Amino acid sequence: MSEDVSAREVIFGHQHDRIFERLAALDPDLAGYIRDFAYDTVYERPGLDLKTRELLACTLLLSLGSPDELKTHLRGAMRAGASEQEVRETLLFAAPFVGFPRVVAAFAQLRSLLDRQTATESAPPLG
Amino acid sequence: MSEDVSAREVIFGHQHDRIFERLAALDPDLAGYIRDFAYDTVYERPGLDLKTRELLACTLLLSLGSPDELKTHLRGAMRAGASEQEVRETLLFAAPFVGFPRVVAAFAQLRSLLDRQTATESAPPLG
Amino acid sequence: MSEDVSAREVIFGHQHDRIFERLAALDPDLAGYIRDFAYDTVYERPGLDLKTRELLACTLLLSLGSPDELKTHLRGAMRAGASEQEVRETLLFAAPFVGFPRVVAAFAQLRSLLDRQTATESAPPLG
Amino acid sequence: MSEDVSAREVIFGHQHDRIFERLAALDPDLAGYIRDFAYDTVYERPGLDLKTRELLACTLLLSLGSPDELKTHLRGAMRAGASEQEVRETLLFAAPFVGFPRVVAAFAQLRSLLDRQTATESAPPLG
Amino acid sequence: MSEDVSAREVIFGHQHDRIFERLAALDPDLAGYIRDFAYDTVYERPGLDLKTRELLACTLLLSLGSPDELKTHLRGAMRAGASEQEVRETLLFAAPFVGFPRVVAAFAQLRSLLDRQTATESAPPLG
Amino acid sequence: MSEDVSAREVIFGHQHDRIFERLAALDPDLAGYIRDFAYDTVYERPGLDLKTRELLACTLLLSLGSPDELKTHLRGAMRAGASEQEVRETLLFAAPFVGFPRVVAAFAQLRSLLDRQTATESAPPLG
Repeated sequence: MSEDVSAREVIFGHQHDRIFERLAALDPDLAGYIRDFAYDTVYERPGLDLKTRELLACTLLLSLGSPDELKTHLRGAMRAGASEQEVRETLLFAAPFVGFPRVVAAFAQLRSLLDRQTATESAPPLG
Repeated sequence: MSEDVSAREVIFGHQHDRIFERLAALDPDLAGYIRDFAYDTVYERPGLDLKTRELLACTLLLSLGSPDELKTHLRGAMRAGASEQEVRETLLFAAPFVGFPRVVAAFAQLRSLLDRQTATESAPPLG
Repeated sequence: MSEDVSAREVIFGHQHDRIFERLAALDPDLAGYIRDFAYDTVYERPGLDLKTRELLACTLLLSLGSPDELKTHLRGAMRAGASEQEVRETLLFAAPFVGFPRVVAAFAQLRSLLDRQTATESAPPLG
Repeated sequence: MSEDVSAREVIFGHQHDRIFERLAALDPDLAGYIRDFAYDTVYERPGLDLKTRELLACTLLLSLGSPDELKTHLRGAMRAGASEQEVRETLLFAAPFVGFPRVVAAFAQLRSLLDRQTATESAPPLG
Repeated sequence: MSEDVSAREVIFGHQHDRIFERLAALDPDLAGYIRDFAYDTVYERPGLDLKTRELLACTLLLSLGSPDELKTHLRGAMRAGASEQEVRETLLFAAPFVGFPRVVAAFAQLRSLLDRQTATESAPPLG
Repeated sequence: MSEDVSAREVIFGHQHDRIFERLAALDPDLAGYIRDFAYDTVYERPGLDLKTRELLACTLLLSLGSPDELKTHLRGAMRAGASEQEVRETLLFAAPFVGFPRVVAAFAQLRSLLDRQTATESAPPLG
C-alpha cells in the first residue's frame, strides 16, 4: 500500500466521503474523533499491516455484535487485501471463543455483502 | 511451522500437558471438546497462519475480559512468531472499538508476562 | 422423546432442513460445526432433558441479545415440551440478573412467535 | 418538577399509557415489575435529580446496545430538562470507555429522534 | 420442598444470614431490593421449580462472568436438588452459545466448591 | 472548579502521577492516548460538569465490570463533588438496567474505598 493513501481511504474506498458525511450528520465532533483518533492515529501506526488490522476489526465487531460496522470492515478487509477465505477463517475462528450465535450473525453480514457484489458485477454496464 | 507440530503444542509449549491436565481436572469432557474442536479442528484449518490466529485470539479474549486465557494467548502469539511490537499493536488497536478499560487490563497481563520472562532469563542457570 | 429423533429434529421441527440449508449457504463448515458439535455432540449428551436444555438456551440467547436465534429456541422450548408459562417464567427470571431491557426484548420475540402461531391456527385449512 | 408527577409520567409524557399497554401485552407481570420496581421504587428515590438519572439511563442503554429503549430515554432525558448539548456530551463521553461503535449507534438513535421532532414541529397544525 | 421454606433459605442454607448481612453492609437498600424483589418476588413465582431456576441462574452468571455469585448458585443448585452431573451438563451446554472461556471459568468455580466440600467432609468432627 | 486544574488532576488527586506512571509502564503510547484523548480532549469538553461526568464514568465501568477502574472513578466522583449518597444512588440506579450482580460488585468496590478512607482518617498523624 502506498504511503500516500490513508488507511481509511483504502478501507472505505469510494464510500469514504459518504461515510464521513453520515458520521458528521450524527455529530461533527464524533466524526472528528473517529477520523483523527481511530483512523489517522491508531490505524496509521506502524508494526501491523492493514490487512491484519482489518481482520482484527472484524473480530472486534463480531464480538461486540455491531452488524453495520462489521459489514463495513468485512468489505474493508477485502479492500486491504484479505481473500474471501481469510475473512471466512477469521469469522469461524471466533466460534470457540464467543460461541456460534455471534458467528452466524457475522456470516449473515458477509453473505449480504457478497450477494451485493455479485449483483453489481453481473449488472449491465449502465445498470 | 512444521506440519508435525500441532497448533496447541506451539501455543502452549512446555506447558501443554499441564494446561490440559488442569482442564481435565475441571471436566474431562470439557477438556476433550477444547482439544478436539477448538484446537484440533478450528485452529488446524488452513487459510490463516498461526501467528494471525493468535493475534485474533488475543483480541477476542481482550474483548471478553478473560485475563487468564488472555495471558496464555499473549504468550502463544509470541511462540507463534509475533514480535512484542505486533502484540502491543494488536492490543492498542482494540481501544477505538471497545474502549480503554479492556485495553489497560490486557496490557497488565502482557506486563506480568514480560516481567516473568525477564526474571527467568536473568536468573542463574540453576535458579 | 424417542431415542430415534435427534434434538435438532425436535427443536426445529419441519423447519429443520430449511434452517440448515440457510446455515450452509452462509458457510458449509460453519453449518457442519453447528450440526456436529453444538447439536449432535452437546445437545445429545445425557444428564439433562431437552426441555431444560431449551430453557437454558433461551436464557443464554436472552443474555447475549440474539433475537433471531432466541425466537428459534423459544419455539424449540415449546416443541420440547415447555408450556407457555414455563417459557414466560424463564424469561422473567432473568430480570434480576441481567436487567429489564434484555427481558423486554425477549418477550417481544415471544409475542411475535405466539402471534404467528395464533394466525396460523385460525387460518382456514388451505389458507 | 412537581412532586405530584411521577418520574415515568415525565419521561414518557403523552406516550406513557401506550408504552405500558405495550409492555402489558408482552407480559402483565413484566409490566408490573417495571412500573413498580424500576420506576416507582428506584426512579423515585431521592438523592439524584431526574435529569441526571436519565443521562445515566442513556449511558446504560448505550453500553447494553439496546437501541429502542435508548431512544425512549434520549427523549426522556430531554423531557426531564436535559439540553440537546447535554445529551450529546453524555453519548460522546462513553467513547473512551466502551469504544466508538456503541456511540455511533447511540447517535443514530438521537438523529432519528431529532428528525422526527423537527418533522412534527414543521408540520401544519392538523398534519 | 416445603412451602414454609423460602427459595433463599434453600439456596443459601446456613450461610443465608451471613450473605444478607454482607449485602446490608454494602448497602441496606440494595440488600432489601435483592431480598424483596429478586428472591421473595421473582424466585417465589410458581411455574418453574427451584432446581430449574438455579440451573438458569448458573447459566446467567456464567454468561455475565460473575465468579463469586456463580459459586453461590452452583452450591444453591445442588441444595435445590441438582446432581453434580446436572450442574456439569448445564455448564457444558453453554459452550456452543457463549464460547469456552466463560465455561472454563465456571468449571473453575465448581472445582473450588467441590474441593471445599470434600475437605469439609473428610475433616474430623471438631475440625 | 478552577479552570487551571485539569479534570484528571481533580479525579486522581495526589495519585495522579503514580497512575500515569503505571500506565506508561504498561505502554507509553497507551498512556499518551488516555491522557490526550480520554482526559484532555473528552473530559475537558464543556456542556457537562465534572461531577456528572464522573457519575457517568462509574455507570460505564459498573456496566463493563471493570472493578479497578471503577474504584478509581468512585473516588474521582467524590473528589469532583459527589456526595456518598449521590454515588450510592448512581450504583443502585443501574440495577433495573443491568441486573444485581454488577451492582453488588460495584458496591463492594465502594465499600473497600470507604473502609480505606475511614482507616486513614482514624490513623494517628504519623501513622
